[in-house]
Amino acid sequence: ANETVAKDLQATLVELIDLSLLGKQAHWNVVGPQFRSIHLVLDESVDLTRASSDRVAERIATIGVAPDGRAETVGTGSELPPFPAGFVPVTDTVQFVSGAIETISVRMKERILRIGDSDPVSQDILIGTTDELEKAGWMLRSQLTI
Amino acid sequence: ANETVAKDLQATLVELIDLSLLGKQAHWNVVGPQFRSIHLVLDESVDLTRASSDRVAERIATIGVAPDGRAETVGTGSELPPFPAGFVPVTDTVQFVSGAIETISVRMKERILRIGDSDPVSQDILIGTTDELEKAGWMLRSQLTI
Amino acid sequence: ANETVAKDLQATLVELIDLSLLGKQAHWNVVGPQFRSIHLVLDESVDLTRASSDRVAERIATIGVAPDGRAETVGTGSELPPFPAGFVPVTDTVQFVSGAIETISVRMKERILRIGDSDPVSQDILIGTTDELEKAGWMLRSQLTI
Amino acid sequence: ANETVAKDLQATLVELIDLSLLGKQAHWNVVGPQFRSIHLVLDESVDLTRASSDRVAERIATIGVAPDGRAETVGTGSELPPFPAGFVPVTDTVQFVSGAIETISVRMKERILRIGDSDPVSQDILIGTTDELEKAGWMLRSQLTI
Amino acid sequence: ANETVAKDLQATLVELIDLSLLGKQAHWNVVGPQFRSIHLVLDESVDLTRASSDRVAERIATIGVAPDGRAETVGTGSELPPFPAGFVPVTDTVQFVSGAIETISVRMKERILRIGDSDPVSQDILIGTTDELEKAGWMLRSQLTI
Amino acid sequence: ANETVAKDLQATLVELIDLSLLGKQAHWNVVGPQFRSIHLVLDESVDLTRASSDRVAERIATIGVAPDGRAETVGTGSELPPFPAGFVPVTDTVQFVSGAIETISVRMKERILRIGDSDPVSQDILIGTTDELEKAGWMLRSQLTI
Amino acid sequence: ANETVAKDLQATLVELIDLSLLGKQAHWNVVGPQFRSIHLVLDESVDLTRASSDRVAERIATIGVAPDGRAETVGTGSELPPFPAGFVPVTDTVQFVSGAIETISVRMKERILRIGDSDPVSQDILIGTTDELEKAGWMLRSQLTI
Amino acid sequence: ANETVAKDLQATLVELIDLSLLGKQAHWNVVGPQFRSIHLVLDESVDLTRASSDRVAERIATIGVAPDGRAETVGTGSELPPFPAGFVPVTDTVQFVSGAIETISVRMKERILRIGDSDPVSQDILIGTTDELEKAGWMLRSQLTI
Amino acid sequence: ANETVAKDLQATLVELIDLSLLGKQAHWNVVGPQFRSIHLVLDESVDLTRASSDRVAERIATIGVAPDGRAETVGTGSELPPFPAGFVPVTDTVQFVSGAIETISVRMKERILRIGDSDPVSQDILIGTTDELEKAGWMLRSQLTI
Amino acid sequence: ANETVAKDLQATLVELIDLSLLGKQAHWNVVGPQFRSIHLVLDESVDLTRASSDRVAERIATIGVAPDGRAETVGTGSELPPFPAGFVPVTDTVQFVSGAIETISVRMKERILRIGDSDPVSQDILIGTTDELEKAGWMLRSQLTI
Amino acid sequence: ANETVAKDLQATLVELIDLSLLGKQAHWNVVGPQFRSIHLVLDESVDLTRASSDRVAERIATIGVAPDGRAETVGTGSELPPFPAGFVPVTDTVQFVSGAIETISVRMKERILRIGDSDPVSQDILIGTTDELEKAGWMLRSQLTI
Amino acid sequence: ANETVAKDLQATLVELIDLSLLGKQAHWNVVGPQFRSIHLVLDESVDLTRASSDRVAERIATIGVAPDGRAETVGTGSELPPFPAGFVPVTDTVQFVSGAIETISVRMKERILRIGDSDPVSQDILIGTTDELEKAGWMLRSQLTI
Repeated sequence: ANETVAKDLQATLVELIDLSLLGKQAHWNVVGPQFRSIHLVLDESVDLTRASSDRVAERIATIGVAPDGRAETVGTGSELPPFPAGFVPVTDTVQFVSGAIETISVRMKERILRIGDSDPVSQDILIGTTDELEKAGWMLRSQLTI
Repeated sequence: ANETVAKDLQATLVELIDLSLLGKQAHWNVVGPQFRSIHLVLDESVDLTRASSDRVAERIATIGVAPDGRAETVGTGSELPPFPAGFVPVTDTVQFVSGAIETISVRMKERILRIGDSDPVSQDILIGTTDELEKAGWMLRSQLTI
Repeated sequence: ANETVAKDLQATLVELIDLSLLGKQAHWNVVGPQFRSIHLVLDESVDLTRASSDRVAERIATIGVAPDGRAETVGTGSELPPFPAGFVPVTDTVQFVSGAIETISVRMKERILRIGDSDPVSQDILIGTTDELEKAGWMLRSQLTI
Repeated sequence: ANETVAKDLQATLVELIDLSLLGKQAHWNVVGPQFRSIHLVLDESVDLTRASSDRVAERIATIGVAPDGRAETVGTGSELPPFPAGFVPVTDTVQFVSGAIETISVRMKERILRIGDSDPVSQDILIGTTDELEKAGWMLRSQLTI
Repeated sequence: ANETVAKDLQATLVELIDLSLLGKQAHWNVVGPQFRSIHLVLDESVDLTRASSDRVAERIATIGVAPDGRAETVGTGSELPPFPAGFVPVTDTVQFVSGAIETISVRMKERILRIGDSDPVSQDILIGTTDELEKAGWMLRSQLTI
Repeated sequence: ANETVAKDLQATLVELIDLSLLGKQAHWNVVGPQFRSIHLVLDESVDLTRASSDRVAERIATIGVAPDGRAETVGTGSELPPFPAGFVPVTDTVQFVSGAIETISVRMKERILRIGDSDPVSQDILIGTTDELEKAGWMLRSQLTI
Repeated sequence: ANETVAKDLQATLVELIDLSLLGKQAHWNVVGPQFRSIHLVLDESVDLTRASSDRVAERIATIGVAPDGRAETVGTGSELPPFPAGFVPVTDTVQFVSGAIETISVRMKERILRIGDSDPVSQDILIGTTDELEKAGWMLRSQLTI
Repeated sequence: ANETVAKDLQATLVELIDLSLLGKQAHWNVVGPQFRSIHLVLDESVDLTRASSDRVAERIATIGVAPDGRAETVGTGSELPPFPAGFVPVTDTVQFVSGAIETISVRMKERILRIGDSDPVSQDILIGTTDELEKAGWMLRSQLTI
Repeated sequence: ANETVAKDLQATLVELIDLSLLGKQAHWNVVGPQFRSIHLVLDESVDLTRASSDRVAERIATIGVAPDGRAETVGTGSELPPFPAGFVPVTDTVQFVSGAIETISVRMKERILRIGDSDPVSQDILIGTTDELEKAGWMLRSQLTI
Repeated sequence: ANETVAKDLQATLVELIDLSLLGKQAHWNVVGPQFRSIHLVLDESVDLTRASSDRVAERIATIGVAPDGRAETVGTGSELPPFPAGFVPVTDTVQFVSGAIETISVRMKERILRIGDSDPVSQDILIGTTDELEKAGWMLRSQLTI
Repeated sequence: ANETVAKDLQATLVELIDLSLLGKQAHWNVVGPQFRSIHLVLDESVDLTRASSDRVAERIATIGVAPDGRAETVGTGSELPPFPAGFVPVTDTVQFVSGAIETISVRMKERILRIGDSDPVSQDILIGTTDELEKAGWMLRSQLTI
Repeated sequence: ANETVAKDLQATLVELIDLSLLGKQAHWNVVGPQFRSIHLVLDESVDLTRASSDRVAERIATIGVAPDGRAETVGTGSELPPFPAGFVPVTDTVQFVSGAIETISVRMKERILRIGDSDPVSQDILIGTTDELEKAGWMLRSQLTI
């Protein structure tokens, strides 16, 4: 049972690290009228993502499995579409990052249900992570509406 | 001239991000009698490395070039040897990470001299980064001596 | 004399509570390109409004009258136009809230003059409150001009 | 499914706002030998209630529905009995507010069970809110016993 | 004109110092079921009174007159009734201190009107001081009612 | 139902208090090359354990039962093996304390499942406590491996 | 000589741990009109007692003896009367805890004199501890008088 | 014995309050080239003196006697020479205040010896107070030498 | 009416900016035995002056007029005598800066009376500014007397 | 040599003071949809500019020359184009301020090279100042692009 | 009598300064597996030693004697054995520094008894210093045992 | 090359430690009208000097050489003239300490040039140290001029 839980946590770890690299890339390269707002909100969500990845990785180690957050593992293991090169306008940036968050969020819910009673602590960590991710997604998306 | 400077800063950026991922991996997977000391010192150097990578990336943007810190770029662009999978004993961890720091440090000095008067601000950022990196390397290495 | 003063303070209390509810509603439902700026500036003015309502209510009690800030009293006692339901675009939000602030501000000045020497302490509290309200109104309105 | 969850969150939002107004009213109008203790404990629970209402409202927006915390909605939507006018003695204050908390707490538990697996994040937010509410209720009630 | 203003400020200074000594005496000697509440609230009002006396004394010096807050001046210059010796029950303590505050508050209002336009800065300092004094009086008195 | 929940919370309370006494005993008496690391990590886990025992005890009171954390109850109610007398070498200390944590952790999971839907708030408190306990256990155990 | 000093410090350690458990038990189970005041003042004195027990235990280790603060040692070694089970009214709580403090305080003075010049550092630690204990006793007792 | 100790503490209390009034008077009225230095150092020593007087007064209450720090008691009970009226040059100010401190310091030493073993806690409080007083005296006096 | 108020606020703004530049110039160039005291006190008053100029400028914008704090406007609009070039001895520095403050203070009082009831908020801002300015003037002047 | 260095530092000082006045003027008068972002970012860069001007001025004094930051010197000595009067739309504001920063930045680089080895400390101060200025310029410019 | 006390304080001062230099030397040159623990614990004890030397030196000045903490005085006056040159392994470092602390500690106790009643304030300062020194010695020594 | 750099850093280390001892000696023994200003400014520069010596020593270790900051090394290695014994008047103190700073500053510049490109990190550390030293020298010297 631990192994199944560890697999779901490990997949989450890879996605969170990928999201934090992607968030920093967007933070540096966004351009346009809302530059400062997006630049700042992305940094806040990178901070949350880094904290979550730490919490998830240490949970994996706690249940006896070695977490894997190495560059190569992230490069090959994450299935998020690649972030565009160069400076990126505000709207494209927001759409790309909030899209990536939504993709992860859908997978998180499946994992939360799959873990269920088999490990309530790991489940609780994933619920807390999803809460933060989805709120960050809302704050980005609200920038776009209308 | 800006382009040459940007190339050196971009190479530095990739190495710093790689080092921060590697530092976290080591932070989570180190095991053995000095676990807590190494676990903590690695986290401090990840914090410094993340701050430096932010400073370097924003300098690249400031001189008009788009910095590239994406997962794929780091995966393929960094030439540090891959960190071993699984839990890693204290001594191996310290040797691996301080070796990686030394590798980067040698390259940093070449870049500092190459940039020279052409962009004293970028040069100063690389000097400050090297100072922190080398001190972190010393604190790890001292754990090994004798 | 106390009673007249209490009446003006009580009317202010109702308006401030109504404004704080309205400010939170706007804070949650604003959408569009300046979402983050308006979301944050509204929260700052809700904080100020809540602090002012507390100060006003405790002044009423201090001069011997029971302040009334109950939901029903606010619902029926405030004469601000109702805030629209649903998500509200940035410009509409700013116009609505800064309009409400302007309405209250006009009434505040009348009260300040009416209280005058009869209770300089209560007058000073209303002056301070108006200062904050009008500055918040300017910061919202500046978002619109040109 | 989202709609059902949003309905439960929206009902919670209205009750929390009503409770925060009611708590402030009690905070200003309580009189008697334990004035300071009750005055302070009520302010602490208003702070918690305001933070919870913010968290709940932003969750509603996150799942795509516009939260409604307007004065009129609170005035008509909440079913808590009206708080008495004027200054209120310590014991009556404590009984009224802890009664209101108990009423809400019963409804919260039904909502927590109803949401269940359909939205574990929203469920977790309601559990956290109920925890704080019930603890606040205990701290008030303990003032009465014996 | 300065002299008349200085006289009002000097009379205020003496009363504030007397009140701060009296507040500390009450803080140390209060006994009974609400000991802790009264002990703490008195200390808070001593802090405010000390800060006010400092502000008033430095205003006197600022308008060119030497402030006088010496023990003998306070002993003979203040007309507050002497605080009872020994330990004092909660209710007596509250009545005595809130009575003293009320006495000073009445005099403050006369001084505020007397100073009026002749020195708006000094007037503003007295208004601020009266605001704090009267609020402290309310918080004590509320302990008694009903 | 409340009674069954209270029984599980009460058993948790006794174990947490026992663990905090045991953790302090180990903190004072550990000796050997990793003294400082173990001395500090034990103090951090005593802080967490004390905070958890407070949270659990106040939850028991909140659901209407008197929590029992008296010395005699802890002495007779806890089933952890007795900590050895005198100074204790680093490795023995780590093995003893992490063993005790593991023993409690197994019981916590049974309680979490037993409580389930009957009291989601109490369940959530136990999940959070287990999360902290298990992480503390991992940080101690990692000191030993290899 | 060290042994005699260590014996007095060890007896103090046991009493301080017992007092901190007893203080928490009272903190959780007190009920009645002054609940909040007693609940808070007990927590403050538990904090002081825990800090003192740490200081005493580390002094014992410093003079070369292993301190003993294990549950069983406290259970059998402390001679304070057992705290009543269940919820306890305010007055009984205050009388019980201040009685326990007075008992310890009498013993502390004997130890202070016994240690005298033989170990001025240990004596100073006991004097500081007694100062805090007796002040905490006064703050509780003042709640009762008249 | 308690009574003798209380008498010494009470005499100290009166002198400390007198010194704090005198220190504030000097703080407001000092004039000349070192105004700022003396103005600030006096305020620091008033802060220390107020804290000491609080500590002494609460010790008196702790040993069962009512402390007396009323204006009249200070006016008649303190034997320090009266501070001159009006603005006072720097050198006169320093000489007067450091003289007063020296006077009190001599009496403190007599009290410390007189109390001796009969109440080591009260003795320790007087020693700490004397330490601070004498250091404040040195910092003032150093301003004069040569 | 707004225009007349804006004119008085605008004249204040220019003087405050001029005073802050003059204060910094004095802060850097003062020399002599009281260097540190004057260096520090000038920096504190520059901080206050900058905060006041910000408050005044934003009030001008709030009443609908564009504030003007540009270098040229300050250069030509302020009527303070020019500060001497080069290093300036302590006494000359103090006399010059406190003279400038006095000049502004006289004009402030005229503006406070002129604004009166027409804009109580703007009047209150000018009163607060004058309070700080005059206190700063006193602290400088006291350095000179005798 | 010192004189040449001082000339470059003095020219920098004048430009930094001019930039800080210009930044505040822009901070107060900007209007339009990104008001809040530009209002805040300008204030941050005024803070940096003020800190830099202080550092530069004190370096001038340290090498023995009197720095000159008087209003008249800034008015005539700075060659930045005059900032437009009245309220200024967001885009014009950003273009004007980032243009001014670019103008200064070009001159800074010439000074850095000119000073070179003759005074490495002054050179380092100018490098640090240029780093901050150019980053502020980038953050403003990014608001415009695309 | 003062002279005898001053002599004991002066000898303490020299030893504390010597210990702080020695502690820093060890902090920089320690090498081996516990590097980080020893590096940090030494820095903490240097901080304590510096604070103690300051307290002791100012006490000497307070009793009218000029303290002497000059390099030459420390070099010739301290009788601690010289710390070895070069990098020093962990165990040697700990033994050397804890040996030095033990040497000083023995002398401190003699001084404490010698001063006795003749200057209770100086005695109390030495007791406090010895307490900290001996605790630091225990924390180092515990690293060695077993 | 490393050896030459290490020699310059080592010479700097000895001078900085000597300066920090000398600064504390002056801090304790200065007497006269500006006592407080000089007492405080010396403490600030001791803090800077201690931080610099730490930074320099750890850089020496980082480049592989053992730093030497032992009492004997400082006593014989520093060539600063010996600080006078006993209490020292303000002017003599300032002249002595600022003279010592100037002596070191001259040597620092030679070292900065000598190191040049061979170790830009060490050079940067010496530049930063010189900046602080020279500013401290200016703040002391300004006390004397005119």
